[in-house]
Amino acid sequence: MAKEVERKFLVRNDAWRSRVSRVIAIRQFYLSIGADRSTRVRVSDGSSAKLTFKFGSNLPERDEYEYPIPLDEALSMQAFAIGSLIEKRRHLVSHGGYTYEIDVFTGELAGLIVAELETPDHVPDAALPEWLGREVTGDQRYSNAVLALSEKTHSTITALAS
Amino acid sequence: MAKEVERKFLVRNDAWRSRVSRVIAIRQFYLSIGADRSTRVRVSDGSSAKLTFKFGSNLPERDEYEYPIPLDEALSMQAFAIGSLIEKRRHLVSHGGYTYEIDVFTGELAGLIVAELETPDHVPDAALPEWLGREVTGDQRYSNAVLALSEKTHSTITALAS
Repeated sequence: MAKEVERKFLVRNDAWRSRVSRVIAIRQFYLSIGADRSTRVRVSDGSSAKLTFKFGSNLPERDEYEYPIPLDEALSMQAFAIGSLIEKRRHLVSHGGYTYEIDVFTGELAGLIVAELETPDHVPDAALPEWLGREVTGDQRYSNAVLALSEKTHSTITALAS
Repeated sequence: MAKEVERKFLVRNDAWRSRVSRVIAIRQFYLSIGADRSTRVRVSDGSSAKLTFKFGSNLPERDEYEYPIPLDEALSMQAFAIGSLIEKRRHLVSHGGYTYEIDVFTGELAGLIVAELETPDHVPDAALPEWLGREVTGDQRYSNAVLALSEKTHSTITALAS
């Protein structure tokens, strides 16, 4: 179990692209999505899989439990996905001693780019890279779980949340 | 991943008690419950824990995925349980080449006794032990997930199912 403390930002321009240290191809889907929790299956680089539970709607901090699972089981569980498969390329970029993850979505969400900074530290605005755009921490529309949901399922989660 | 094929019965009398080969103390709770799926955490004999996903409302057959998890994480996830903790003593009894699991509930559900037979075989009525009562396979009221749910949560799942 870990406390996940994560800030999320839009991305203003492409300046980060020259500083990428690593790219990870991610495919992920959800087995359950509730107002205060989600269960995610993520396959990285087509070669490893893990299961992640996140609890708590008190963003940016959430409780997270993560377990590696066999790749073949992860792939077969896709048959039980709620909402859409999320496909993205995660780019790791270092800035000021922190690692930023820039997710460039492909597939159904092509065009969307979101940057994440995972740290319990308070990073002042002046220390953030200039290519970051507006902060969207806590904005449910940028939650991957919500992004995975179709219109129909979205009504369900809204009903659950109210 | 496994296909779980399970029949469930009420228990007519106590004749099974003289044939118990093993007793397991079970404490379990649910992290998510939907119309066609559930996520369960089970702690057995206070010493080992596993996470189980069940998919499919087409009882008696369901898809099941099971993973061992650290005991301390299982215990800490109880803070996120949906509904009540289920406590029961599972008694293993052999009859006619099959193992029956007789769950004697304690705690909030004290008084309830349910027997399960997990096999893909067709076991004819004549081969069933005489102490079995009415078959309740597929009767959602005897689903452990439904038993865990309080009145309030029960309304939610009914809404989700419709």
